[in-house]
Amino acid sequence: MRIAIVYYSKTGNTKKVADLIAEGAKKIDNVDVKSMSIEEIDNEFLNEAKVVIFGSPTIAGTFAWQLKQWLDAAKNVSGKLGAVFATANYVGGGAEVAELSMIAEMLVKGMLVYSSGVAEGQPFIHYGAVCIKDGDDGQKERAKIFGERIARKAVELFN
Amino acid sequence: MRIAIVYYSKTGNTKKVADLIAEGAKKIDNVDVKSMSIEEIDNEFLNEAKVVIFGSPTIAGTFAWQLKQWLDAAKNVSGKLGAVFATANYVGGGAEVAELSMIAEMLVKGMLVYSSGVAEGQPFIHYGAVCIKDGDDGQKERAKIFGERIARKAVELFN
Amino acid sequence: MRIAIVYYSKTGNTKKVADLIAEGAKKIDNVDVKSMSIEEIDNEFLNEAKVVIFGSPTIAGTFAWQLKQWLDAAKNVSGKLGAVFATANYVGGGAEVAELSMIAEMLVKGMLVYSSGVAEGQPFIHYGAVCIKDGDDGQKERAKIFGERIARKAVELFN
Amino acid sequence: MRIAIVYYSKTGNTKKVADLIAEGAKKIDNVDVKSMSIEEIDNEFLNEAKVVIFGSPTIAGTFAWQLKQWLDAAKNVSGKLGAVFATANYVGGGAEVAELSMIAEMLVKGMLVYSSGVAEGQPFIHYGAVCIKDGDDGQKERAKIFGERIARKAVELFN
Repeated sequence: MRIAIVYYSKTGNTKKVADLIAEGAKKIDNVDVKSMSIEEIDNEFLNEAKVVIFGSPTIAGTFAWQLKQWLDAAKNVSGKLGAVFATANYVGGGAEVAELSMIAEMLVKGMLVYSSGVAEGQPFIHYGAVCIKDGDDGQKERAKIFGERIARKAVELFN
Repeated sequence: MRIAIVYYSKTGNTKKVADLIAEGAKKIDNVDVKSMSIEEIDNEFLNEAKVVIFGSPTIAGTFAWQLKQWLDAAKNVSGKLGAVFATANYVGGGAEVAELSMIAEMLVKGMLVYSSGVAEGQPFIHYGAVCIKDGDDGQKERAKIFGERIARKAVELFN
Repeated sequence: MRIAIVYYSKTGNTKKVADLIAEGAKKIDNVDVKSMSIEEIDNEFLNEAKVVIFGSPTIAGTFAWQLKQWLDAAKNVSGKLGAVFATANYVGGGAEVAELSMIAEMLVKGMLVYSSGVAEGQPFIHYGAVCIKDGDDGQKERAKIFGERIARKAVELFN
Repeated sequence: MRIAIVYYSKTGNTKKVADLIAEGAKKIDNVDVKSMSIEEIDNEFLNEAKVVIFGSPTIAGTFAWQLKQWLDAAKNVSGKLGAVFATANYVGGGAEVAELSMIAEMLVKGMLVYSSGVAEGQPFIHYGAVCIKDGDDGQKERAKIFGERIARKAVELFN
């Protein structure tokens, strides 16, 4: 089963977190994970993916317009499992609000949205992984765990 | 497969919409649907339900604290498919913001969230069914269609 | 005192509502109101405005990326009174969520945000004016009242 | 001019942050600041306050139902300057989403909402002060600065 991680990265931090999430997701058997910038989408992979994890930096308290522009036009995400992550420059810097805005759009696109929340024990991950810049050690570890959880949920739902 | 509709109703409007959603969900084969107020929860039914659809009136722009109090304490919703509906007194009266707040909490609780969005054609249902008071004819019809879509998605995912 | 209405319009509906809000605002003495698309900003007027009212169509459940792109780069809105309006294609179509996302960004930009809410009696206007397409008669009337209220509040605060 | 800080605290962390914000606000001349739990409201002080700063722990990704219950019933906040703060147990734990939900309700109540955002330079404070538990040193310092900024803005607007 294919899992696509689709991100927009401005400084490189969001790309780094995307790669951590990919690393976590790959721990699950039988998944094929690909992390891709919106500037270099592998449409064939994305079309066949059962899961899309979206990532954005937080820009003035919401997600990047570049990712919104891409998502507005996306035709191949409905029915897929969706999840989100965001980077921000500091605690309280809007990452969670950016995540919730992405989730709002993903629901409009007809995705199934999942974050694991508190349901899989510690660490709790409310709406999606959050890293301050590219993450301290704990945040990096949580990004990997997030990828693993989303992949496991996808296998549970779709295999 | 069991589908629980859990609502808080103050004036009776939200209860009426819950019943419309139940009516729609029952059109799908092999589902057992029960609509229940948070004041009269059938815990056995809820525990075994694969789907929980939450409904609230909009109170000062968010969902009712009574439903939040109930949801904070709920122990049996993680991993289930979740969906929402809301009533409000007028267009622009906060129903969608109330829905998104409920969705935020449902993600924290570990639910899979789905609304159908634009993915199943007209009518588009962004975050969940919305009725102004107990709904005009079009809104009532959309509430039924929403119930049917959530039930169909649940059968697709879990059967 | 100057009041700028800054909108992005795709179909023309949001422009029409901007003009209704301008019409309402002009009922207040001593205000100078100008409605402008982000494609034709009068920067001199905007710089001196004490109030900026932002408007957007609802696109996939959030506000238009074009307006976000503009707002991300805006340098002259901090400390001003801010308000919002949105158009959507149907009830439940995301206008309020779009408004709340705009408000989140306006707060980051350092604006004072006001909507009147329920504080000025009927009609209640939760986060900002909402019109379905270009508004039915009641929605059009509310858009005018919204403009009037924001202008009156601005005079109260800044004069 | 009176500034009320109204909070609900479950573990004591939110109370501690309320007190830090009060400490910061008191640095501004000619303000009288009082921090009060919703369980011990000084109604006379609150009625005459020009500013109310609301604080809540983050509970399952939104603000505490106890504070919502209180806010739903509040009759004396319209027209006042409003601001928010929240505590959460970890980064990404929902504090910002809780803040935005509070802000949504405050707008419905007819308050003017302000956070300072990026408008007053570093530290940027997006929607309101955020502390993880009762805050590390930097977060505590930001809470004080937040109080000071809100008080200064109030003096600017209302004196």
